[in-house]
Amino acid sequence: MIASDCPVEWTMNYYGGIEAGGTKFVCMVGSGPDDVRAEARFPTTSPAETLDQAVAFFRQQAREVALAGIGVGSFGPVDLDPASPTFGFITTTPKPGWANTDFVGALRATVDVPVVFDTDVNAAALGEHRWGAAQHLDPSIYLTIGTGIGGGVICNGRPLHGLVHPEMGHMLMRHDRELDPFPGVCPYHGDCFEGLASGPAMKQRWGQPAETLPHDHPAWNIEANHIALALTNLILNYSPRRIVLGGGVMQNEGLFPLVRRRVQQFLNGYVQSPQILKEIEQYIVPPALENRAGVLGAIALAMESVGR
Amino acid sequence: MIASDCPVEWTMNYYGGIEAGGTKFVCMVGSGPDDVRAEARFPTTSPAETLDQAVAFFRQQAREVALAGIGVGSFGPVDLDPASPTFGFITTTPKPGWANTDFVGALRATVDVPVVFDTDVNAAALGEHRWGAAQHLDPSIYLTIGTGIGGGVICNGRPLHGLVHPEMGHMLMRHDRELDPFPGVCPYHGDCFEGLASGPAMKQRWGQPAETLPHDHPAWNIEANHIALALTNLILNYSPRRIVLGGGVMQNEGLFPLVRRRVQQFLNGYVQSPQILKEIEQYIVPPALENRAGVLGAIALAMESVGR
Repeated sequence: MIASDCPVEWTMNYYGGIEAGGTKFVCMVGSGPDDVRAEARFPTTSPAETLDQAVAFFRQQAREVALAGIGVGSFGPVDLDPASPTFGFITTTPKPGWANTDFVGALRATVDVPVVFDTDVNAAALGEHRWGAAQHLDPSIYLTIGTGIGGGVICNGRPLHGLVHPEMGHMLMRHDRELDPFPGVCPYHGDCFEGLASGPAMKQRWGQPAETLPHDHPAWNIEANHIALALTNLILNYSPRRIVLGGGVMQNEGLFPLVRRRVQQFLNGYVQSPQILKEIEQYIVPPALENRAGVLGAIALAMESVGR
Repeated sequence: MIASDCPVEWTMNYYGGIEAGGTKFVCMVGSGPDDVRAEARFPTTSPAETLDQAVAFFRQQAREVALAGIGVGSFGPVDLDPASPTFGFITTTPKPGWANTDFVGALRATVDVPVVFDTDVNAAALGEHRWGAAQHLDPSIYLTIGTGIGGGVICNGRPLHGLVHPEMGHMLMRHDRELDPFPGVCPYHGDCFEGLASGPAMKQRWGQPAETLPHDHPAWNIEANHIALALTNLILNYSPRRIVLGGGVMQNEGLFPLVRRRVQQFLNGYVQSPQILKEIEQYIVPPALENRAGVLGAIALAMESVGR
């Protein structure tokens, strides 16, 4: 079949994206933030039901447009090693029913297009790197602070994978117990970053959900302190050109100035960079793609896997 | 000129490497650990005198073989941004006389070959990645623990650069003051990693140089604790496939088993990887290139810049 035989929409490629979150799935077909053809959001229930909904969405789309591939940014832990027998699986997650779910296998068995698989935060990092708040800045980091804390990195042009994948939320940090005696909620590490600063940590610490705390509550200063300690270490480890902070806790935008000021205090002039010393408002920023960073990043995963 | 007109040595390319340390310079010409043509080591004195010695070495070599390029792995901080007016400079170092030294400029003005510039630890990371203890493992980290603490990373095929470059030695860490009440020696951060665990920190903490402390001295348990906390964070941030530990303090090889065990304790089973859970002896290792990792890595920088 040659292009001139095709209806117009068949002459260009579209890409699918799935942001697979612990609470909801977002599916999208398009080729960027200005070219979204279709989008669906539904709650994450059982793997069978949820993946069926995703497959139904893409099958419907594939009847109407040429789908060149699907990118997936998934909650985890996930297996990203193509040489592993459980490549493409969600592995040891505590989310009921989802441990050892063959995510990529389920898609490949039902939608006949290439599937690219990565973490939700690597997808969001790629989305922000390609179209958002960290455009063409390498390395750049996307960190989400919400129900959990996790980070993705774009480094030398691609998402960073490794032995498993980064688990920045579990960094062990300086903990000033005079400022915050809370022992943390992480079942593995107690007062790691996630144990001190995630949404559930804030809820347990203050006896109410973070989003109900008034903006002048002392909780926010303590939260800013924890986040800034973690960012300081990310800056010292990666020397990123930009850090994008998303997630539910960061919806309180009053946190940003507190975090930025403390990062400068913690670094104490050691990193002699104007981006940090003078322009930190443009250095530690919210996602420009807002709540579409993950799913657009998943589309970017599919596009970049075919060199687009 | 065609190959058959050339003396034998002219028909193959050699590469130069400089490991520029705060104490000594190592210069080498070769194409790998099994093909070292010449090597020179001399103390780091003034920039003019030291760079003159390096230039004299390479000029002499260039009379005898075709030098295709020189790689430099330098102490820092250094400016790695090719768009910066001070690219190739050692910038704000406290080392007397060396602040704002135009290292690359001095070489380019006197030796007519391409010069590639990076940190000493990125060069060592690349050397170990290409020929040593982290062969073809990506990402991999080289960390030196000695007079200072610094790290280099190979990530998605290349050394990691960023806003400046990683400064892992200044990570702010969990500090158990019951185990170690020492406030640290870092003039910027007090009890950051370098402030607690560098050679000078050990010397001030125990009143004698680290290398004179008996192997059963309690200092080593505390030192292992600090190093393991930092490695735990590096593992959580980068998910590296291997970590190579060099530098003077690590010459006490008894430290390795202590560090490995504590890394496992700190991670507490969170990272479900056999390399960490079962094979950590092959995961946290000394450099295979020993004290040539940096200079061989500098040669690798030159080679990789021309696609070799």
